[in-house]
Amino acid sequence: MALTQTISDSDIGQLMAEVGCRARTAAGELARATSGEKNQALAATAKAIEASAQALLEANTRDMEAAQKQSLDSALLDRLELNTARITAMAEGLRQIAELPDPVGEITDLHYRPSGIQVGKMRVPLGVIGIIYESRPNVTADAAGLCLKAGNVAILRGGSEAYHSNQMIADCVHQGLAAAGLCADAVQVIATTDRAAVGALITMNDSVDVIIPRGGKGLIERVSRDATVPVIKHLHGICHVYIDDGADTQKAIAIALNAKTQRYGTCNTMETLLVAASEAGSVLARLEKLYQAEGVELRGCERTQKHLPKVKLATQEDWDTEYLAPILSIKIVDHIDEAIAHISQHGSGHTDTIVTTDLNRANRFLREVDSSSVMVNASTRFADGFEYGLGAEIGISTDRLHVRGPVGLEGLTNQKYIVLGDGHIRQ
Amino acid sequence: MALTQTISDSDIGQLMAEVGCRARTAAGELARATSGEKNQALAATAKAIEASAQALLEANTRDMEAAQKQSLDSALLDRLELNTARITAMAEGLRQIAELPDPVGEITDLHYRPSGIQVGKMRVPLGVIGIIYESRPNVTADAAGLCLKAGNVAILRGGSEAYHSNQMIADCVHQGLAAAGLCADAVQVIATTDRAAVGALITMNDSVDVIIPRGGKGLIERVSRDATVPVIKHLHGICHVYIDDGADTQKAIAIALNAKTQRYGTCNTMETLLVAASEAGSVLARLEKLYQAEGVELRGCERTQKHLPKVKLATQEDWDTEYLAPILSIKIVDHIDEAIAHISQHGSGHTDTIVTTDLNRANRFLREVDSSSVMVNASTRFADGFEYGLGAEIGISTDRLHVRGPVGLEGLTNQKYIVLGDGHIRQ
Repeated sequence: MALTQTISDSDIGQLMAEVGCRARTAAGELARATSGEKNQALAATAKAIEASAQALLEANTRDMEAAQKQSLDSALLDRLELNTARITAMAEGLRQIAELPDPVGEITDLHYRPSGIQVGKMRVPLGVIGIIYESRPNVTADAAGLCLKAGNVAILRGGSEAYHSNQMIADCVHQGLAAAGLCADAVQVIATTDRAAVGALITMNDSVDVIIPRGGKGLIERVSRDATVPVIKHLHGICHVYIDDGADTQKAIAIALNAKTQRYGTCNTMETLLVAASEAGSVLARLEKLYQAEGVELRGCERTQKHLPKVKLATQEDWDTEYLAPILSIKIVDHIDEAIAHISQHGSGHTDTIVTTDLNRANRFLREVDSSSVMVNASTRFADGFEYGLGAEIGISTDRLHVRGPVGLEGLTNQKYIVLGDGHIRQ
Repeated sequence: MALTQTISDSDIGQLMAEVGCRARTAAGELARATSGEKNQALAATAKAIEASAQALLEANTRDMEAAQKQSLDSALLDRLELNTARITAMAEGLRQIAELPDPVGEITDLHYRPSGIQVGKMRVPLGVIGIIYESRPNVTADAAGLCLKAGNVAILRGGSEAYHSNQMIADCVHQGLAAAGLCADAVQVIATTDRAAVGALITMNDSVDVIIPRGGKGLIERVSRDATVPVIKHLHGICHVYIDDGADTQKAIAIALNAKTQRYGTCNTMETLLVAASEAGSVLARLEKLYQAEGVELRGCERTQKHLPKVKLATQEDWDTEYLAPILSIKIVDHIDEAIAHISQHGSGHTDTIVTTDLNRANRFLREVDSSSVMVNASTRFADGFEYGLGAEIGISTDRLHVRGPVGLEGLTNQKYIVLGDGHIRQ
């Protein structure tokens, strides 16, 4: 197997150049594929995954055994593992993508100009997308499905621990593409675990149009730093809830509890609670009890400690930390300006919420907080492609260009201009 | 003056770091500026430019004299020169930008989700935009105006030959910003002609959100290669007109003539004419006469030469050349597939037109040609922000991410998600 082969850097360069060349050639064909063909490929891939369940489990067992021998941590092993339920979920995910409307070819804003021409926009694929992710086999199926539906060619590079699982899923995708008469190169799963392949992929500007890294902060920082191909990334989520002066206490408490405790390891989980000084007395003691019951460790500013004497003092580092754990930092602020300033300084541009009854301050928060999702009276946990109705997401962008927030099929496309005339010439 | 100063690289680094830091600070304020404040700043800048006409002409004379001493070419001198008409046009351009609708804060697609939350999108500025351009003083005013209206902070780096003109225009912009009570750092014109400043600007990822290079291919290639900040660029325009089998001969001839001869030096000028073999007899001889009358040199494939024996043979290089001059290459193709394949191989993704009467082939061309503007029965010369109704443009993007085609105020913004609830929590 490739795992045990030694491949030289120049061979990797050659391999990746071929992958890129085949991808670019496939991009034209895939952009022209009909919705019917793409949906047929998705359905056939789902069917192939279900039919290959036994082989998938065996391939995954090889990956799991190798990972256990390397004593990899339990979170990684959990993400790596496939079981019958997860295989069914992968197939079901592909069927759901098939059911989403096809964004490609949609024409909008077609209108007449004084010159007599009609100008409009047509939604088109981005082209070739390189996706770099950790050892999560289900991402191979998800990413292939989303890229395919949006008419993009995908070059997938999953974590090396998932090598056998990913190659088996790639087989299923290729069966699906073949069933629909689509080119196998529309989805390529890189058949080497050599890290040099990533270095090549993120600098192949002629054959790759965008790179989407998915995984931990280290991976994403490394890819962003070294890539010359444009990157759509999700760096981290330091999300805030601000309980405003005059907020409804019940709603404030419900949102602050839900945003922290509904799930701890997700990027849209609240990491810092900001409380207007006027509300501290009515919410903090009650929240402390509720958080304690859930096992959440609290860290607070000095003013918070006056209300909650048992709470540990938050350090400067706390305000900049994505805990992804049952830990919450709390800060008392004088007013909305201080809250917005804190979010501007310490937030990560992901998701921030105000709990308020004041219309003017709700509007100010919406307008002035520069995050990919800004909310009024709702839990940060809603920042999600499914909750927003995108149907599925390939990730959440905390970048400023092209797409912000959950990235669904629309975020994987762009719009070109179309002009319709009847022999029109420019004067 | 700074022109004659020697600034060390570390001083440049320090200077640019300060420029970036001030820009980032100003970005928050400018994103919050009201439409009224921004329009007031634009109107006051226009007024200041008109009031400073004499001083602007004197500053420009210094630049022109220095440029003439360096024996710079006449095209550069023409772009560098300011006169009363051009000064009036700059002011008028700013007033027109003031009249455009403010894109910032626009809320769209706000709809209820089954969970009870409302999800929508709000249009927001990109942040800090670095613009690198040649020695054209009017670009300083245009770029400042467009960025300001879209709520973006601008860092402008014009060509060194326009140094004095640009600094004088910067003074006028700062008078305009002051009149509206807006921060002077909202528009910074870099006060050094040192090239190291460009190298710093395009790698300041913390303080610059996007780089827009405007100018010749060499400048744009250099900036794209070295930038780590995302770039929106216009590389070149190799535009095609394809005269399809069964096209209306009159319209085909009018469009082919207009697309080439209405202006030679613009990026949306046709560089290659593709003609279906069945139409060659009816259009080529007539077009040859018309092009000859305009002084256009023709170069053709071997099949073209059979119709037009006096035409020089086109080389492989011709198909890949943006002439920006009265030269046209002509190729006879068998059918639309060959035309689309030629455009795919040799085009630059800028603007391509089909002249046809066939509905199916019109739709295929619109769908399958992967250019920022794709047209049916209209001259390529229409690919322009004003013609499309954008009001003004900062350039034309031939990139695939974020924005394709003419970039107006909308292209200088993005959309974030907004969520409105009433105490909603995620189940």
